[in-house]
Amino acid sequence: MDLNADVGEGFGRWALGDDHALLDVVTSANVACGFHAGDPETMRRTCERAAARGVTVGAHVGYRDLHGFGRRFVDVSPETLTADVLYQLGGLDACARAAGTRVGYVKPHGALYNALVRHEAQADAVVDAVRAYDPTLPVLGLPGAVWLKRARVAGLPVRYEAFADRAYTAAGTLVDRRRPGAVLHDVGEIASRCVGLATEGRVRAVDGQVLRMPVDSICVHGDSPGAVAVARAVRSALAEAGVTLGPFAGGLDRLSA
Amino acid sequence: MDLNADVGEGFGRWALGDDHALLDVVTSANVACGFHAGDPETMRRTCERAAARGVTVGAHVGYRDLHGFGRRFVDVSPETLTADVLYQLGGLDACARAAGTRVGYVKPHGALYNALVRHEAQADAVVDAVRAYDPTLPVLGLPGAVWLKRARVAGLPVRYEAFADRAYTAAGTLVDRRRPGAVLHDVGEIASRCVGLATEGRVRAVDGQVLRMPVDSICVHGDSPGAVAVARAVRSALAEAGVTLGPFAGGLDRLSA
Amino acid sequence: MDLNADVGEGFGRWALGDDHALLDVVTSANVACGFHAGDPETMRRTCERAAARGVTVGAHVGYRDLHGFGRRFVDVSPETLTADVLYQLGGLDACARAAGTRVGYVKPHGALYNALVRHEAQADAVVDAVRAYDPTLPVLGLPGAVWLKRARVAGLPVRYEAFADRAYTAAGTLVDRRRPGAVLHDVGEIASRCVGLATEGRVRAVDGQVLRMPVDSICVHGDSPGAVAVARAVRSALAEAGVTLGPFAGGLDRLSA
Amino acid sequence: MDLNADVGEGFGRWALGDDHALLDVVTSANVACGFHAGDPETMRRTCERAAARGVTVGAHVGYRDLHGFGRRFVDVSPETLTADVLYQLGGLDACARAAGTRVGYVKPHGALYNALVRHEAQADAVVDAVRAYDPTLPVLGLPGAVWLKRARVAGLPVRYEAFADRAYTAAGTLVDRRRPGAVLHDVGEIASRCVGLATEGRVRAVDGQVLRMPVDSICVHGDSPGAVAVARAVRSALAEAGVTLGPFAGGLDRLSA
Repeated sequence: MDLNADVGEGFGRWALGDDHALLDVVTSANVACGFHAGDPETMRRTCERAAARGVTVGAHVGYRDLHGFGRRFVDVSPETLTADVLYQLGGLDACARAAGTRVGYVKPHGALYNALVRHEAQADAVVDAVRAYDPTLPVLGLPGAVWLKRARVAGLPVRYEAFADRAYTAAGTLVDRRRPGAVLHDVGEIASRCVGLATEGRVRAVDGQVLRMPVDSICVHGDSPGAVAVARAVRSALAEAGVTLGPFAGGLDRLSA
Repeated sequence: MDLNADVGEGFGRWALGDDHALLDVVTSANVACGFHAGDPETMRRTCERAAARGVTVGAHVGYRDLHGFGRRFVDVSPETLTADVLYQLGGLDACARAAGTRVGYVKPHGALYNALVRHEAQADAVVDAVRAYDPTLPVLGLPGAVWLKRARVAGLPVRYEAFADRAYTAAGTLVDRRRPGAVLHDVGEIASRCVGLATEGRVRAVDGQVLRMPVDSICVHGDSPGAVAVARAVRSALAEAGVTLGPFAGGLDRLSA
Repeated sequence: MDLNADVGEGFGRWALGDDHALLDVVTSANVACGFHAGDPETMRRTCERAAARGVTVGAHVGYRDLHGFGRRFVDVSPETLTADVLYQLGGLDACARAAGTRVGYVKPHGALYNALVRHEAQADAVVDAVRAYDPTLPVLGLPGAVWLKRARVAGLPVRYEAFADRAYTAAGTLVDRRRPGAVLHDVGEIASRCVGLATEGRVRAVDGQVLRMPVDSICVHGDSPGAVAVARAVRSALAEAGVTLGPFAGGLDRLSA
Repeated sequence: MDLNADVGEGFGRWALGDDHALLDVVTSANVACGFHAGDPETMRRTCERAAARGVTVGAHVGYRDLHGFGRRFVDVSPETLTADVLYQLGGLDACARAAGTRVGYVKPHGALYNALVRHEAQADAVVDAVRAYDPTLPVLGLPGAVWLKRARVAGLPVRYEAFADRAYTAAGTLVDRRRPGAVLHDVGEIASRCVGLATEGRVRAVDGQVLRMPVDSICVHGDSPGAVAVARAVRSALAEAGVTLGPFAGGLDRLSA
């Protein structure tokens, strides 16, 4: 099983989260690519830190929106979005290469992540970008998201993730963040759910039903000290349950490509 | 002999120059990489147009300064500059690959071009970026520029250019733009100088001395209709003088790399 | 009757449209405020040119989106939008004051203009910004737009505009740009419609019905040489029809405020 | 005596320093205006917090350089700089008005602060901006700085500041930050120097000489928890020494202007 988290989310003078601590916990790092966060110097250093720990670098591509941190929907045209994602992939991969690794997968960020669950034109645009960059590059996202269906049709390797601290509906979708109980806070509960996901490919929905949810990675958060503690607890619980942790995709393997 | 010009200098809604006309004249295109001009969509389309004409794509890297069009010195730290250039190289190369070609060389833009003539720390920073990206990638600039000396020591292929419409001092440096006569306007004179540069590797300085100036490329401008006419006249004169025109570096050759 | 057009839509090195020609035609100038276009130097110079011709300066506020020229919807929060508009108003007004005039009215730009027709939260946000800046400042927009209803309730002076070259439905709304016939191109037809709007407050809809449409201003476009010719034809036709042209709001009157 | 500190230095998702704690200590707040830091929403909220505590809002104007946090010199033209500063003043003042106060003074930030000590063209440019905005608006800076000389000639009210934690040469200039001892760390020593500045208008230089240094304000830093503790110690020491603390300029007084 893979653990992924967002890192490198600073910009210039501004930092966010405890990347050092997180990179000691996860096996895959979603690195901001300069459009919603992440300047090139931060990106390069983050890739170096990930590479030093054997953590795979993923391209955390987002809308061009530093001010909104990529968290607000932008009604960008497909042509523009494809080029913007292509550029982010190339920019981060250059930093990764300089750090002795490569971009190992692609995961959209924030409002783009959410839009791609249903927005067909933007979904196709992002798939086009990844395919134009490297048709063997895996993409990571939510089971059922329209962009992953398109990615599969386009021949891209598709990987799925679950969220450690989010409640699921009986339909297997995330409970809306504004609903009570949408975000779990109990460390023990979060850790035990992750063990269930990793060992049985199952998770319990809010209505009590047990859902089949086979995933390749579990996403943990890290933008608060408490979040790092949760991430550590998840890692420990998985290790105790005998789950072997490791990245679902390798950046180093791509170096020879 | 190679002819180069700046293209792709728009941003979003804004365009600059007649890229279509210029790409019919030159053999190498300095494509803006998104920091002083050039959004990814423009970059991708510009690479497609260059590739369609067999024109080599060069990375026209600049300071992060859209507002100033990269024309004002920014006292950026070497570490930041290295990463910024690395990112621009990767971003443009991704667009070039999607267009079926590759970045074939690197030429700095505007105030960065000027700073690198003497600014040692920024010179080293840019050389570091190119070397980290691809140690076989040629760099193009002014004979005598400190950054090209460092590039040579670092093992990068170094190429030199002359300016079609700029006057030279007896020392072989450009006459300061603010001096009278610094910029040539007579089309015939410009074209005949270019023929001299291409056939004899010589140019006459403002004091009448004939200077040895062996160059690999001649830079023509294109940000006005008149400039395109000058570029066409230079190309015609070179052809009439029996000079074979062709890029000094090939982007397509790098596709297999 | 007032004629308004968008001006000052450049950014740094980039220009757009023929502001000099347009400012000789219109009586109100929608000046870009730096978020979708318009750097402060351009803003100041544009205000000077408007003031020299007795043209009223309007604040053409937009989303923070230089790359998209403010033409794509951004799902920004109301709190952020209010502050962003407030800042644009203050920034442009400072440039206007330095040019010897003041901001005389507010008109949203592009995707924000369109969003405010129906988006209640963003409508309230913009009204809040104008009211916080100056509760006597007129706002200009499309008859029926939700933000103008809110503005009226909030006590702001509300002014309405029609578009010289756009077709209207029987319901008085604009025909979708993607429909054939949505944009008029015949200069004579455009000019005679404008005369009808100015003298009778009426316009013929696409189904032939004559609609009542009392407006305070007519918007002409200027981002192409042809557009300037249309604007001139509208002005001439109005003058011939005996319509007195003049701004609906005065920037100079506010100087003593 | 006035105490000033930099606040509102976040941008969008990113925050910096403990503004709440600082605003309880200082009497004047240098608020970032959106060019090197500070988005409008942050600016407005910061003005509200300052106003609620009776702290005067100052315009902390900087180069257009979010990526460099305004800490690197930009060789911007005087015309551009004047307009950029004018726009920042207007933008912040709009936020201040909405918060029930006004901009009470102007203090340049970072690399611009340093450049204005000697750079005559940029000095004149900033003075022109302040004068164009409001010729009664006080400016705050380093004794001896060329821009304050120009400001005095231009008729602007000029105020001087000392740095609580910086060593001075015998000539009354700041010891270069790269020299040992340039920055003081001992809280007691810093506090006692501030008392000397406030009660006698004197400070001891690094060579032991006692310099006359009559200042209107003392600048304390706040971008680390330790810095806030120093600021509190300075305030306490001044209070114990019988120094009355209060802003050198009032934003509220300007509300009726």
